[in-house]
Amino acid sequence: MSSRTNISCLQEAKRVAIFGGTHGNEMSGITLVNMWIQNSAEIERNGLVIKPFISSPRAVEKCTRYIDTDLNRAFTPENLSSPDAEGLPYEVQRAKEINRMFGPKGSSDAYDVIFDLHNTTSNMGSTLILESSTDLFNLQMVHYIKKAIAPHTCSVLLNEHPQLKYSTTRSVAKHPIGLEVGPQPQGVLRSNVFESMRTILKHALDFIELFNSGVEFPPCTVDVFRVQERMDYPRDTNGNITAMVHPHLQDCDWEPLNRGDPMFLTFDGRTILYEGANTVYPTFINEAAYYEKQQAFMTTCREILAANAIRKACK
Amino acid sequence: MSSRTNISCLQEAKRVAIFGGTHGNEMSGITLVNMWIQNSAEIERNGLVIKPFISSPRAVEKCTRYIDTDLNRAFTPENLSSPDAEGLPYEVQRAKEINRMFGPKGSSDAYDVIFDLHNTTSNMGSTLILESSTDLFNLQMVHYIKKAIAPHTCSVLLNEHPQLKYSTTRSVAKHPIGLEVGPQPQGVLRSNVFESMRTILKHALDFIELFNSGVEFPPCTVDVFRVQERMDYPRDTNGNITAMVHPHLQDCDWEPLNRGDPMFLTFDGRTILYEGANTVYPTFINEAAYYEKQQAFMTTCREILAANAIRKACK
Ligand SMILES: [Zn+2]
Ligand SMILES: [Zn+2]
Repeated sequence: MSSRTNISCLQEAKRVAIFGGTHGNEMSGITLVNMWIQNSAEIERNGLVIKPFISSPRAVEKCTRYIDTDLNRAFTPENLSSPDAEGLPYEVQRAKEINRMFGPKGSSDAYDVIFDLHNTTSNMGSTLILESSTDLFNLQMVHYIKKAIAPHTCSVLLNEHPQLKYSTTRSVAKHPIGLEVGPQPQGVLRSNVFESMRTILKHALDFIELFNSGVEFPPCTVDVFRVQERMDYPRDTNGNITAMVHPHLQDCDWEPLNRGDPMFLTFDGRTILYEGANTVYPTFINEAAYYEKQQAFMTTCREILAANAIRKACK
Repeated sequence: MSSRTNISCLQEAKRVAIFGGTHGNEMSGITLVNMWIQNSAEIERNGLVIKPFISSPRAVEKCTRYIDTDLNRAFTPENLSSPDAEGLPYEVQRAKEINRMFGPKGSSDAYDVIFDLHNTTSNMGSTLILESSTDLFNLQMVHYIKKAIAPHTCSVLLNEHPQLKYSTTRSVAKHPIGLEVGPQPQGVLRSNVFESMRTILKHALDFIELFNSGVEFPPCTVDVFRVQERMDYPRDTNGNITAMVHPHLQDCDWEPLNRGDPMFLTFDGRTILYEGANTVYPTFINEAAYYEKQQAFMTTCREILAANAIRKACK
């Protein structure tokens, strides 16, 4: 992982998976993956094994986020090491199968890269989600993608939060990367969202092909939004929400939220202000799937990560 | 229903119901109705019995459109007259209960007015849905609402189509009226959509109160969009869709679609044009719930309906 000229030499990335349908009602990834299963020409790259894969076929079939439990929280050590048994929740069974096919998680046998394709009802645009600030391969890939899609943009969300980080489907791979594109309602396929996702995947695969071919990527920096806090809706004693995201905050993902800015609007017309000391950058604002997770939005702070130069390690 | 001065004298409208949660993932109506069940001050009017009501509590509980079958298609004569039995689909049971409580449909005992509150993922804005072009009470109410909310607007969708008209929950009442507001993703509550719905309901109830107090409403006209045709997505032989709503059509509900205009974009990048002879006005464009109904959008034509003056009949 290092060399005299400060170039980090990394293992070749030969096996890549593209997951759609980790959540069965997020239609862009499901549609792309199904399309690529039928005809993979578009995603083929020199020397790469690329596997498009529907993570949760039963949830896709029913066009619902999940059957028994959220697959994208199910890749815990407990679940993955639990004995096979009748009556396990569908997504736990599925997590164990996926771990056998693409993992085992944390092992040298694991797939090199898993892209996991998601949609959000939030106005987040295209967002790459990282689980580590020290994964040079992913940082360089993200940098490459951002440059390649300019003048279009793509935000980078980094989740290393000790409590809020969760056990994703993609975490089975050595280099897990989430791609979240919105706004798109659940069960809907919007052409603009579909095309954004497709373009980002194209550049991501190009990056991997170039890396494997021996290209050296110079040092770079990546602007990221680091997950800080989960903000819940105001609720009554029965747990029912009593306010909505304020119209001044709605759809303003990634824009600064300062102390004193409107945050919620109660049903009886009262504005609730943000009272945190520091400016934050909210994201996943009013995501449909997060009502049940007690989350109206997530706060982040901005940070610049530096990445070493990388190239493929010599054998 | 008539008089010498061309004023139609109509029966007083004493009993009014407001339904939310006919579809359990359409959050504006659900939230408003639950709020009004707890505190009805806002919807009380002189001499009116107003009943806020959750139509499909189990679907609301699960935040899903329906449990077994679409409640808003379930009010058929066959269902309503079927014998009570174990094992009926949940929504059929529920339709029979609602018919007992607010009907019977078509009888003089039925509620006078049912407002049924819906949300759509389509960019339709606020839309009042009528089931009859000859219901003077509803036409006058719609006219009143449109004037009251100006400069905001509200479209009127008229469905008298022999094949495409369906047996709605609200059809139990003498004067059934749907209110559809979007765009709002399923499972999401947006403050702007919530407030639009609330405002329209306010004016609707004001109208009924004025009518019951003896106010005469002069003749008027109402611009409506009349349901013409259901347009499906292009599909392959397995029934899977092969194209998306074209970006030039997406979000353009109520705007004219002319022969030769782009309609769909196939996954391999081909544009499919609208080839109908006449200009139509599409609506319910890319509504999430209509993928399973084989409908990408609905075409309508514009029409102006004239309504007689009305006032309450003398006893
Ligand atoms: Zn997702
Ligand atoms: Zn509905």
